Amino acid sequence: MKMVDVGQKAHTERVAVATALLRMRPATARAVKAGKVAKGNVLEAARLAAVMAAKRTPDLVPLCHPLALTAVSPELSFGKDGLRIQVTVKTTDRTGVEMEALTACAAAGLTAYDMLKSMDRGMVLESLQLEEKSGGRSGTWRRSRGR
Amino acid sequence: MKMVDVGQKAHTERVAVATALLRMRPATARAVKAGKVAKGNVLEAARLAAVMAAKRTPDLVPLCHPLALTAVSPELSFGKDGLRIQVTVKTTDRTGVEMEALTACAAAGLTAYDMLKSMDRGMVLESLQLEEKSGGRSGTWRRSRGR
Amino acid sequence: MKMVDVGQKAHTERVAVATALLRMRPATARAVKAGKVAKGNVLEAARLAAVMAAKRTPDLVPLCHPLALTAVSPELSFGKDGLRIQVTVKTTDRTGVEMEALTACAAAGLTAYDMLKSMDRGMVLESLQLEEKSGGRSGTWRRSRGR
Amino acid sequence: MKMVDVGQKAHTERVAVATALLRMRPATARAVKAGKVAKGNVLEAARLAAVMAAKRTPDLVPLCHPLALTAVSPELSFGKDGLRIQVTVKTTDRTGVEMEALTACAAAGLTAYDMLKSMDRGMVLESLQLEEKSGGRSGTWRRSRGR
Amino acid sequence: MKMVDVGQKAHTERVAVATALLRMRPATARAVKAGKVAKGNVLEAARLAAVMAAKRTPDLVPLCHPLALTAVSPELSFGKDGLRIQVTVKTTDRTGVEMEALTACAAAGLTAYDMLKSMDRGMVLESLQLEEKSGGRSGTWRRSRGR
Amino acid sequence: MKMVDVGQKAHTERVAVATALLRMRPATARAVKAGKVAKGNVLEAARLAAVMAAKRTPDLVPLCHPLALTAVSPELSFGKDGLRIQVTVKTTDRTGVEMEALTACAAAGLTAYDMLKSMDRGMVLESLQLEEKSGGRSGTWRRSRGR
Repeated sequence: MKMVDVGQKAHTERVAVATALLRMRPATARAVKAGKVAKGNVLEAARLAAVMAAKRTPDLVPLCHPLALTAVSPELSFGKDGLRIQVTVKTTDRTGVEMEALTACAAAGLTAYDMLKSMDRGMVLESLQLEEKSGGRSGTWRRSRGR
Repeated sequence: MKMVDVGQKAHTERVAVATALLRMRPATARAVKAGKVAKGNVLEAARLAAVMAAKRTPDLVPLCHPLALTAVSPELSFGKDGLRIQVTVKTTDRTGVEMEALTACAAAGLTAYDMLKSMDRGMVLESLQLEEKSGGRSGTWRRSRGR
Repeated sequence: MKMVDVGQKAHTERVAVATALLRMRPATARAVKAGKVAKGNVLEAARLAAVMAAKRTPDLVPLCHPLALTAVSPELSFGKDGLRIQVTVKTTDRTGVEMEALTACAAAGLTAYDMLKSMDRGMVLESLQLEEKSGGRSGTWRRSRGR
Repeated sequence: MKMVDVGQKAHTERVAVATALLRMRPATARAVKAGKVAKGNVLEAARLAAVMAAKRTPDLVPLCHPLALTAVSPELSFGKDGLRIQVTVKTTDRTGVEMEALTACAAAGLTAYDMLKSMDRGMVLESLQLEEKSGGRSGTWRRSRGR
Repeated sequence: MKMVDVGQKAHTERVAVATALLRMRPATARAVKAGKVAKGNVLEAARLAAVMAAKRTPDLVPLCHPLALTAVSPELSFGKDGLRIQVTVKTTDRTGVEMEALTACAAAGLTAYDMLKSMDRGMVLESLQLEEKSGGRSGTWRRSRGR
Repeated sequence: MKMVDVGQKAHTERVAVATALLRMRPATARAVKAGKVAKGNVLEAARLAAVMAAKRTPDLVPLCHPLALTAVSPELSFGKDGLRIQVTVKTTDRTGVEMEALTACAAAGLTAYDMLKSMDRGMVLESLQLEEKSGGRSGTWRRSRGR
């Protein structure tokens, strides 16, 4: 195992978008939306955790390169099934930020779980996945909708 | 927002088990099983990442208490759909280790994703969830199978 | 230099309260109170940063012991001069949590500064100080008001 | 909340200077100057803590970008009221290092407080503030002396 | 003490190679080679620890600059006396990666020690040293064999 | 791989002493002793790095348990061959602190190397080893002098 050599790769703008769904009971979602969660503001905590986790990715994912992230944008919204999480990460560096976007989504979901678990321990983080990435030698990739 | 006061809670043995599934194409799973992954030994890296992430949980999940973990046991196996991840975490402390077990599962899945993503960018981390927890005032909780 | 031996000290409940003031222009305070800060929810970010920094204290203050914090409670309010920050930290351990409370106040103030600095670079963090601490061999200490 | 996109900003040299004052009793300052502090060399520890904290800024201040710091210079001296702390931080990057300079000053002050607190728990960190910053789109800013 | 200013240095490719030897009893080496170590796969754990520690170097070595590492390659092999560790680190940055290569070797050796210590507490990490470095103003340096 | 379960072990006082030698040229040692090192006070920096690294051990050595360290005492002295490093670590916990003592010695040696490398790149960290440990089920172990 090693951290592969990216020294010959070009500095290009690289963007990655990842998403996840924290599936929860309707009553749990209502409590968040009504601001009635004893532990505080779930959405703000989840956003902040996403940003901070993106920066910690190389500490968590052993073979990741440390990268100079230029933007981390978490977006949270409630869908029918629970909390939808989307994080966009950007850099201009030698390798992509897929792992940073995925790690940030996971941290947002885990943070929301932590604040809500006394109400709803059965919540499930579903479909943590890359939606698209651009930049670099392998170019643009987009999840095909039929998957 | 605050880290809630657990000072009056008793030190008791607490255990949590979390699971997740990294859904991947059969060819990707075969490459892991055959040891044909350019980045190295995926299963060992994922296990180690799980242990290390469990220890970093209070840095990632903002309102988590720092706990003296006494055991972290990741178990990985291949099922029909991909890599099944299960992590058991133990402590004898004032609050539970659900978040540590979930964080460890996430890190194992993300680490495997990172090592395999050049082969299969569409992999999805599914069903990151608590299976059971015991100890503490709220006692034992088990996921009901019908969920 | 060394981390002094506290192995013979008793595990007792220890509490520390620290405060600080982020002095800012009235217009800056109004923007925070009106929720008109481009970077987002300043008060929630500052509270979360306080909790997280309390947990990181042994990484920042070289000779601090790692402690099992049982509670971190940040309280923010606006006074005449700016943002008043108070953080209470608790543990049941062999040494006190003064440094954790002070570090948390500093992090809250720095986080607010960071989010507001494009509006008001001249803000000053004033009077970062211990207000009281209790527990342990040296017992209770309270700041005398005349200081 | 998000880490704002600085990807379109130019790499320019950026410098920030921050200061603070750790107000202490004259006897406490004399003990430091005479090298009579049981916990060791306060000034060296404070300088080192300043350098290390500057590097940890993105872990403490949630929305800060990770930056490639090129220099961190702490300067400590005793004035009439206590320990004067000044830290200069440099980078050649897309955004400024004000937060790194302020965080480093805070860490130096907290480290000195920690080593001296058994003698003088009433010490206060005063006037943690930016003195000047240069570089980047917003150019040079200097604290006006009349403030 | 300060982190010296490297802002005027050129971005050039820099490589460093460090080595160490974990001296152990023949029976201990045989257990590793036979995969009969209760704690698991020693070589994989040591490699991963090397990569992760290289990334953490600025947190451990106080005056080190944070650098954008582009490659970390650990190589482990058994010699007559024990486990030979070699780590190559690369960057294209303003200062060299000697400390990263040395820190990675130390972490690999300590990780192997940890996994084997119940069998052989007397193991010794010997000859942790720089073998060569290239790039930057001081150019190439190679350890002379006669040393 | 897993972090083994120590939940059934008793909390007992545990002490570990590790040592190492940073072999250097006599002129290098003289520069340190005369305080003529451009990067500053080598011995104070090495001591502080030792204390901080002991606290970071579970982040560096993947399978180490997080422990509540109660004391970390680095002692540095010059012998005929270079800088002799000894670190004593204590805890009252369920498992020993051998890895913390060894990690602290390594960090002290690497920090000194870093500050002196522009004078003497050929320095070697030798004989990083456990000297003795006490406490716990396996009791006291002492390095036999003949080894």
